[in-house]
Formats: sequence, structure tokens, C-alpha cells
Amino acid sequence: MFTPRAIGFIQSPYRDTASIPRGLGAQHKAEGIIEILPEFEPGLTDIEGFSHLFVIWVFDRVEGFDLVGAPPTDDRPHGVFATRRPNPLGLTVVELLRREGPSLHVRGVDMLAGTPVLDIKPYMSGIPAEPVRRGWLAEAEARKAAR
Amino acid sequence: MFTPRAIGFIQSPYRDTASIPRGLGAQHKAEGIIEILPEFEPGLTDIEGFSHLFVIWVFDRVEGFDLVGAPPTDDRPHGVFATRRPNPLGLTVVELLRREGPSLHVRGVDMLAGTPVLDIKPYMSGIPAEPVRRGWLAEAEARKAAR
Repeated sequence: MFTPRAIGFIQSPYRDTASIPRGLGAQHKAEGIIEILPEFEPGLTDIEGFSHLFVIWVFDRVEGFDLVGAPPTDDRPHGVFATRRPNPLGLTVVELLRREGPSLHVRGVDMLAGTPVLDIKPYMSGIPAEPVRRGWLAEAEARKAAR
Repeated sequence: MFTPRAIGFIQSPYRDTASIPRGLGAQHKAEGIIEILPEFEPGLTDIEGFSHLFVIWVFDRVEGFDLVGAPPTDDRPHGVFATRRPNPLGLTVVELLRREGPSLHVRGVDMLAGTPVLDIKPYMSGIPAEPVRRGWLAEAEARKAAR
């Protein structure tokens, strides 16, 4: 189909998965840097105008997958497309704090240090304004709140 | 890094790129179907609870890329990460209308018919509640409105 190649790598305070906040109500306020490789720096033109970015990245330190599993946010099993997945792709929305050449300083990283990045996209507004249903995640939050 | 493999394919009304609405104010209300391959259907468990999904897909009918180019939404050049990109990945938010087995009926497709899908993720709420800056896109809209 295509051969994925990193356009850059994440500088993050997280050295192991256990240190990444997970579960219900986890806040991702950690700051980090997306270090874009020099050959792709011209692609960053005008990126500063966007306050938020989508980052598509690779879970490069996992192997294999289960189709049904218990995600960290709930104690019940759910389908993999609600948790893990055949292609080890991660998607994170970060706030762009500033750019220094090929370095994008961002807030909201939830990736391990050294994570390869495949793509960044400006956050536009293709996002629904109407209320969003969040399936089992909302139910799990309600159960937790009721305890 | 990893070898991408399709988890399914898009059924879309769009047979060629010219028929896909693009440019400022383009509305993506087209309905389509994400046909998940049978081996991955168990991964759909509980997906019905979510009203919106992120779809990560492959631009499988383009070759090569430019680092700076004029996107369809503006007449000025911008960096590739605001337009096209080294890894031919697309990201679309769709509304999940209903599921019929391995078929996810959705609204908001902007992919060609037959487009391979790599991943679907429930739309959670990692999205900023505060106003979002949209860089040159907002500027281009303002210029268009002033004409």
C-alpha cells in the first residue's frame, strides 16, 4: 500500500508506558516537542497559524493485537477499534505552543519519548458542534462516579 | 516500521476526485459505508455507542508529493502539513448512522469509492473546548467573504 516513514519524532517526558496518565478523567497536559526531520521542515510553512494539531503516530513499542480487549479506561472488554487496532496508529490532538524551526512545542502529548510521527494535520473544524455520544466511555464514567 | 493493511474499504458516491466537494465552505454530507473485512468485524464490538468516528485512510490514487503547494481551499501556497503529506494518510470525521454487521453506514465521507481504511477510532472529546485558531484557512475565508 505504502511504506510508512517517520517525518519526525516526539520529545516527551514519558519514558515508559506506565508513566503516561491513562484511565477515566486522565489529563494530558504534558508538554513535549515534535522534532520534524530537516528534509520535511519546508512542509511546516504556515503551521504556526493553527492553535491545535492532529498528530498521527506509530505505537512502535507494541507487537500484535487482540480484537477484543479491556482498555485502560474501563474494566469491561470492548472492540479493538474502540481500544487497540491492527495498524499500530495513534491519534492525538495537541495544542501548538510555538514553533522553533523544525521543533514544534506542544501541550497534550501522550506518547512515549522517541515515538515516530507519520503526519501532522491542522485541526480544522470538521468536528461536530452537536453533542457527541461517547458510548461505553460515558457509561464507564457514570459507573465510576456512582461508586 | 510496520506494513499498513486495510481493515476495510469505503463505499462512497465519489468515483473521481473532481466530484468530491472541495474548497472553502465545502460541505461533506455524503453518505457512505465503511465495509470492514470479516476478520476484523469482532473489533467493532460496542462501536454503535459512538455518534462520530475518526477514519484514518490511505490516499491510494496519488503518487509523490510536494512539500509546499496550493491546496484546494486557497490560492496561496502553504506547507504540506497543512495540505498534502509524505505519508498518504487521510483523516476524516464521520457521523455513524448505523451498523449492519461489518458495514458502518456513515455520513460525511470525502473519500473516493474503494479507498482503503487503516483504522477507525471513536471520536472522544480530546478536542479543545476553547476557540480554535485555523491559520490561513480562516484568512482565506475572510478574503473570500470580502470579495
